[in-house]
Amino acid sequence: MTTDQFTDRHIGPGPDDERRMLETVGYGSVDELMDAAIPEVIRWHGTLDLPPAATEEQAIAELRGFAGRNRVAVSMIGLGYHGTHTPAVIRRNVLENPAWYTAYTPYQPEISQGRLEALLNFQTMVTDLTGLATANASMLDEGTAAAEAMTLARRASKVTSPVYVVDADTLPQTVSVIATRAEPLGIEVRVLDLTVEPLPGEFFGLHLQYPGASGAVRDQGALIEAAHAAGALVTVAADLLALTLLRPPGQVGADIAVGTTQRFGVPMGFGGPHAGYLAVRDGLERMLPGRLVGVSRDADGNPAYRLALQTREQHIRREKATSNICTAQVLLAVMAGMYAVYHGPAGLRAIAERVATRAATLAHLLRELDVEVVHGEFFDTLLVRLPGRAAEVVAAAADRGINLRLVDADRVGLACDETTTREHLWTVREAFAGVLGAAAATAPRWPAVEEAAGSGLPAALRRDGDYLTHPVFRTHHSETAMLRYLRRLADQDYALDRGMIPLGSCTMKLNATTEMEPVSWPEFADIHPFAPADQTTGYRDLIASLEGWLAEVTGYDAVSVQPNAGSQGELAGLLAIRAYHRDRGEAHRDVCLIPSSAHGTNAASAVMAGMRVVVVGCDPDGNVDLVDLDRRIDKHRDDLAAIMVTYPSTHGVYETGIASLCAKVHEAGGQVYVDGANLNALLGFAKPGMFGADVSHLNLHKTFCIPHGGGGPGVGPVAVRAHLAPFLPADPLPAADGAATTGRPAISAARHGSAGILPIPWAYLRMMGPAGLTRATGVAVLAANYVAARLREHYPVLYAGNKGLVAHECILDLRPLTRTTGVSVDDVAKRLIDYGFHAPTMSFPVAGTLMVEPTESEDLAELDRFCDAMIAIREEIEQVGAGRWSAADSPLRNAPHTAAMVSADEWDRPYPRSVAAYPGRVDRMAKYWPPVRRVDGAYGDRNLVCACPPPEAFEG
Amino acid sequence: MTTDQFTDRHIGPGPDDERRMLETVGYGSVDELMDAAIPEVIRWHGTLDLPPAATEEQAIAELRGFAGRNRVAVSMIGLGYHGTHTPAVIRRNVLENPAWYTAYTPYQPEISQGRLEALLNFQTMVTDLTGLATANASMLDEGTAAAEAMTLARRASKVTSPVYVVDADTLPQTVSVIATRAEPLGIEVRVLDLTVEPLPGEFFGLHLQYPGASGAVRDQGALIEAAHAAGALVTVAADLLALTLLRPPGQVGADIAVGTTQRFGVPMGFGGPHAGYLAVRDGLERMLPGRLVGVSRDADGNPAYRLALQTREQHIRREKATSNICTAQVLLAVMAGMYAVYHGPAGLRAIAERVATRAATLAHLLRELDVEVVHGEFFDTLLVRLPGRAAEVVAAAADRGINLRLVDADRVGLACDETTTREHLWTVREAFAGVLGAAAATAPRWPAVEEAAGSGLPAALRRDGDYLTHPVFRTHHSETAMLRYLRRLADQDYALDRGMIPLGSCTMKLNATTEMEPVSWPEFADIHPFAPADQTTGYRDLIASLEGWLAEVTGYDAVSVQPNAGSQGELAGLLAIRAYHRDRGEAHRDVCLIPSSAHGTNAASAVMAGMRVVVVGCDPDGNVDLVDLDRRIDKHRDDLAAIMVTYPSTHGVYETGIASLCAKVHEAGGQVYVDGANLNALLGFAKPGMFGADVSHLNLHKTFCIPHGGGGPGVGPVAVRAHLAPFLPADPLPAADGAATTGRPAISAARHGSAGILPIPWAYLRMMGPAGLTRATGVAVLAANYVAARLREHYPVLYAGNKGLVAHECILDLRPLTRTTGVSVDDVAKRLIDYGFHAPTMSFPVAGTLMVEPTESEDLAELDRFCDAMIAIREEIEQVGAGRWSAADSPLRNAPHTAAMVSADEWDRPYPRSVAAYPGRVDRMAKYWPPVRRVDGAYGDRNLVCACPPPEAFEG
Repeated sequence: MTTDQFTDRHIGPGPDDERRMLETVGYGSVDELMDAAIPEVIRWHGTLDLPPAATEEQAIAELRGFAGRNRVAVSMIGLGYHGTHTPAVIRRNVLENPAWYTAYTPYQPEISQGRLEALLNFQTMVTDLTGLATANASMLDEGTAAAEAMTLARRASKVTSPVYVVDADTLPQTVSVIATRAEPLGIEVRVLDLTVEPLPGEFFGLHLQYPGASGAVRDQGALIEAAHAAGALVTVAADLLALTLLRPPGQVGADIAVGTTQRFGVPMGFGGPHAGYLAVRDGLERMLPGRLVGVSRDADGNPAYRLALQTREQHIRREKATSNICTAQVLLAVMAGMYAVYHGPAGLRAIAERVATRAATLAHLLRELDVEVVHGEFFDTLLVRLPGRAAEVVAAAADRGINLRLVDADRVGLACDETTTREHLWTVREAFAGVLGAAAATAPRWPAVEEAAGSGLPAALRRDGDYLTHPVFRTHHSETAMLRYLRRLADQDYALDRGMIPLGSCTMKLNATTEMEPVSWPEFADIHPFAPADQTTGYRDLIASLEGWLAEVTGYDAVSVQPNAGSQGELAGLLAIRAYHRDRGEAHRDVCLIPSSAHGTNAASAVMAGMRVVVVGCDPDGNVDLVDLDRRIDKHRDDLAAIMVTYPSTHGVYETGIASLCAKVHEAGGQVYVDGANLNALLGFAKPGMFGADVSHLNLHKTFCIPHGGGGPGVGPVAVRAHLAPFLPADPLPAADGAATTGRPAISAARHGSAGILPIPWAYLRMMGPAGLTRATGVAVLAANYVAARLREHYPVLYAGNKGLVAHECILDLRPLTRTTGVSVDDVAKRLIDYGFHAPTMSFPVAGTLMVEPTESEDLAELDRFCDAMIAIREEIEQVGAGRWSAADSPLRNAPHTAAMVSADEWDRPYPRSVAAYPGRVDRMAKYWPPVRRVDGAYGDRNLVCACPPPEAFEG
Repeated sequence: MTTDQFTDRHIGPGPDDERRMLETVGYGSVDELMDAAIPEVIRWHGTLDLPPAATEEQAIAELRGFAGRNRVAVSMIGLGYHGTHTPAVIRRNVLENPAWYTAYTPYQPEISQGRLEALLNFQTMVTDLTGLATANASMLDEGTAAAEAMTLARRASKVTSPVYVVDADTLPQTVSVIATRAEPLGIEVRVLDLTVEPLPGEFFGLHLQYPGASGAVRDQGALIEAAHAAGALVTVAADLLALTLLRPPGQVGADIAVGTTQRFGVPMGFGGPHAGYLAVRDGLERMLPGRLVGVSRDADGNPAYRLALQTREQHIRREKATSNICTAQVLLAVMAGMYAVYHGPAGLRAIAERVATRAATLAHLLRELDVEVVHGEFFDTLLVRLPGRAAEVVAAAADRGINLRLVDADRVGLACDETTTREHLWTVREAFAGVLGAAAATAPRWPAVEEAAGSGLPAALRRDGDYLTHPVFRTHHSETAMLRYLRRLADQDYALDRGMIPLGSCTMKLNATTEMEPVSWPEFADIHPFAPADQTTGYRDLIASLEGWLAEVTGYDAVSVQPNAGSQGELAGLLAIRAYHRDRGEAHRDVCLIPSSAHGTNAASAVMAGMRVVVVGCDPDGNVDLVDLDRRIDKHRDDLAAIMVTYPSTHGVYETGIASLCAKVHEAGGQVYVDGANLNALLGFAKPGMFGADVSHLNLHKTFCIPHGGGGPGVGPVAVRAHLAPFLPADPLPAADGAATTGRPAISAARHGSAGILPIPWAYLRMMGPAGLTRATGVAVLAANYVAARLREHYPVLYAGNKGLVAHECILDLRPLTRTTGVSVDDVAKRLIDYGFHAPTMSFPVAGTLMVEPTESEDLAELDRFCDAMIAIREEIEQVGAGRWSAADSPLRNAPHTAAMVSADEWDRPYPRSVAAYPGRVDRMAKYWPPVRRVDGAYGDRNLVCACPPPEAFEG
């Protein structure tokens, strides 16, 4: 045993475990197993060209090196990214707490009440501050939220015109993302300066920014009215902190509000991750993209939270889909919501007032220097004009440690935020004074200056009325109270720190502490995405290194980490294919073949990329039907753009036909997209870029250890072969020189997407090295085959490849048992909670089945605990089959059992309490108790409530 | 509301809460209340001369400034402090996890099973590695452990000689601490170089170091045999990492082993805190000082852990006491134990082998330069001789970033550790080569050099046989497994992150995250206590600042932070008094007056300081009986050394006689020692140094926010008026020039004690400022009076001062109820667990009572939840009184109820399950369930088992 090897910490089974697992599976070594499992036609026999594994301490030292080459400056750049004080109690107990960051998306609501409550806080915060009716549980960022708002408007508006108007005072990166999304859908984006240009005659939607990117605060009432008169929907991209003082979009008629919650305690992180938001007025709630938390009730009639209107999400309706988003930014939304909980309405207002005072004071100081402040009405951001001297001023401020925004040769932007101090203002003033040759001065008596400065906030737009009135925003204001609230919520949930989460296709492996620690370092956390290049050398070196390693392990030539979710990676990949065909003069190629077994997002992404989806059938073994493929290719040969396949397939099988499939599509002029969701079954053994694929997206939150965070952040880099490299995502911030980036899309709002968490996959690759990564794949496949071998006689294992082996996951078929006993896959999933487990993936890709992916991080004891639980549950199903219990009143159907239920004074179940409470080998000293019984999702969807319910709802 | 004021985060009640609390107590403002509560005779009306409150961000920025003035070098100094890699999973999930660090000492075993198990791991690790029978749950450091071993030997040996022999190859700071402790007890310490000097004819104990401070590994068998033949006991101070490879003390006949576990993953922290250890052979276990965890059983007969042989601890037997230790180093012991759990025996051995290889390789490299390596047999440390050039070599290495130990002008010490790399060795070699003018060389082929170097370990002393055989050391080796083990243990426990811990005299207030975060920073964590001064400027500045502030808030003239627990502060204060009298030629003054209400440690400390304890009575109101005081003073006027009082008294009352008491003692030539345990009732309102006291110790883990850590670390600075300042603790490391520090004791092994956690109180004082500290005191007193007011009609409140007010805590008298119903104070304490609370202090200072100290950090909702629970329990007691339930089968006596009990198939209690499980307002969705039922302490003491029980014990 070599205790300094991270590989031995990451991989659960030790040598003894491995030996016993191999015996059960029937192979002499992992190598033999992999030789048998992976078709030789895709097998790659080289050694990954990565540096050899570093120890945890070496990796940390190297990461400190990168960090040391970033420089934390005071940021006054603004543009949607602001300095913020993350309350330490939230940083330590959410961002740095495995109970929060290792949790999965709350598809199993009974074991997710804590984070569902936290998300409901977030939704309530957004609806209260925007003045709209319903908000979803976060978006990937402001740019993509704005793009989703555009397509929502497209669906909701009856206007046929393809024109979407975007006010010129919108964040430039938002315009870029909107433009990317609009083009394939045939939407014509028209950017107009609405202070001087009129609205067009016909348009289906209007996008406004509030306050504007320039800082200007304008009354948008007339524009909104005009748009409505034209039948258009209006989206207002609004700053939530400003909304604590300014009349909210909902009160002036906006249909949709979007934005970011970054400045609510989430570090800038060189661009992300942060939680974007999207809220809509009454009547549009059922058109919301993404995830929505709502209130329903459990089997005892008690209030319980769960994801509402679920069918729009995990089971996205293929080609009818209107959005491909699966991931929210849960961890960051939780932080932002908790920031509002901790500060409360009075606290937020105080922060906003202070920020507004800083901006007004700065305007005053600069005007005293005869600098022209362009807009008289503003919240936190100033635009100033100094003809020809803007660059000089920006440089002078940078020399003093403060970043300003260089708008153009004549204009400078200056944004104040929660972290801006009086001293910062004076430093800026000094920088201006130096450039302008003004007389030196000594710092003023601040209260007097602040009083003289007055306010930049237009009195007419001042907000009145109360908000954040729910008690949750008025209760947890001491650190002690906040700490306990966070613990109470975390304790209601089940995450990887309690036990296995064997979710097929989700790869819930270890998120090692050493990978996580650098995320909190100020040198990574506190960097503005548009900071000057000489302050971000460390970040850019790290990203270049990571992109290179990802290209190496996948066999591609180029990688972009910009897509901040797998869905965005899919879109980026398909847009690259689209651009490639157009570049070759084959713009007509628009058919995307998708196997029937594919994840719903694939089809949704294709639609968003302007493609027509054609479904290819599967054979009875779950493989792509190559005969049907031939047929489809023949039919669409001239229009064929691409095929999207997942490998190993969503059935968890290494299909042998993959090479042939790639060849057929290529021969017809199409491109091959391999969904990288299942890369954990390939690393070190096969490279998509070498067995025929042209493009893949990767899921860094699956194979590469970014934690799921309870449903985000995800990162979905796109990897391509050389011929597609020119079409990788471009910087969403238009170059100062206006250089064209034709054909290159802006997928998310920041150049490097969620850069702040890229140290995680970097650390993983660095500490595993070539041998470790390869071993991890082998052990992941061994573990899946071990589970299949142990459970096969109790549940049929659907689909298998070579020699009856599965890849890194296996599908357990419940349907025969359901037919004979009435016990459903839901019952088994919920009963697993009583046994102390998170359910496997339910009814995907095959309804009525469970898909189990153990990953390499679970040791044999945990694998056996799971198998034993599944076998014990099978015995319980037998009891139902034998008529001893009815399915309707069995421990399976009544699952999960809460502590309150099993200790109730009355007990009239046909099985004893001990069977309910402590089935199998459950540890009596450390049982996880779900806080609610089975949640009735349909009830909540019929009675949609998506904000915090009043405390009285929980009484009785 | 000002959200950036830390004071508002630290103090629980907001303005509304405060108003309602004042109404209940009957005062118009906190000021009025304090005017009424605090006797004017001690009242201080100034404003504390501290900087105004900083925000959390400012404080962090200033702490980063201090950190930046420390310099982290590679440490090869050794001397008992070594570089170590803290496993990140342990750092994040123990050291940085409030569930671990905010826990209290496990006096309530039912809600402390997690940390008790962790301590049992620690004890098992120590006994296994030392080869002895029983180890306690940690000591304050190696130096104090060695001193306690000396007094244990004194008690256990039948030899009357006062001579205690210490081998000259002992850590110099250990010798200093031993000498400090020996002198007042009349023990004569004789330091002998036993390689050349013979043992004396008579001596009661022998202290050896293994390996020696020089690094030499010697066979100590013959010395031990000789000592035993003389009737002496032998203590071996042993390095646990060395013991993974070397024959352990227990196998060569040692009676006692002591040492530190710092290098098991605990950062050096400029001297502490770390967990020292003390283990004894069979037959001595009942003489162990400090805390001891043992296995007992609960009411259902299941195994359960608890503190064994408790009477020696919280209830230290006053003048018969032999040790004053109350605190262990639980948090650090947990870390060290978990380090062993995570690495396991094979991992530890691998680390030790690597370290030994490094040392042997270094010896080889230096010998090649013709440097004389003094000892041929060593583990990790070398002593080399270079006549006249030692300082030069040390300087050359320092220039290259490596600290060596300058032994004297001719000799240098070099210690290798887990963090030492081949590159470090080469750098050291280069430093030597440069000084010696040797030819430059290129780095060698390492495996070859290492092979050539051989081993420094004497073959005859190689350890054989297995150790750490318990499964706990062989199970949790993946990070996933470790993470879950830590969570499972934490979940079994109740800490401040779940709810209030209203422990009288323990001041369980908020331990704010911002106070805690800097503790993990490498610039504070990774500094050797004997690092060169130019590397520790930041630390020393911070400590000077903290000492100054502590002097200001207490009204003293000088402070030393060296004592690493309150007990050590007491000893330091009394030794200062002793030295003062001696310095004035009044060495005969040896009587220490102690009121009967005093904490047991006071008397124990007095005994240890060579004083005779004379008890002064209390009047019926709990105040010191001034008439009895006069009597005692009269009797002992000529011999009077001091009086020790606690203020406010241990009864939680501001005694009005304090000024008069001080005057009387002073008039008789005595000194006044005020125990600072209750300083939380004084800060900003009264200063002991100004109302008559000469010396106090403070408890930084009470008033100043160092978390209790489950029973340590504590820090107990000693504060004195100017005339005692010359007698404050000295540097335990003798000055290189041998300058005398006569009369100045070395209290703990490092100059600044547990320096690594001093950023915590520094941050607290910095963020509270004068107004915040004063307000905190007022709110703490308000909260105690609020609880007293709400509960007075349900339970008599014992003792009160002015106008019936209590100070910061109140005593609830259960005795009348116990007499009439049989329900005991224990029953109430355990029943509180069912209601979701940690019990108040039980039966101290008055048997049969509960002492409640809410502190300023609990908000009104939590205070009310507690009061409501106490009132509901009172109603339950009524039911027993009314004969509805027997006391023996009441929810009180059966408390705490486990989930297993309330969900058992059978239920034959006279009350329903719902009363057992969810009494009062307990949250059904988030109830804390204790893992075991009431623990039978006596059973465990009769059947003493103090190591991990086999897993089978938990079956059935």
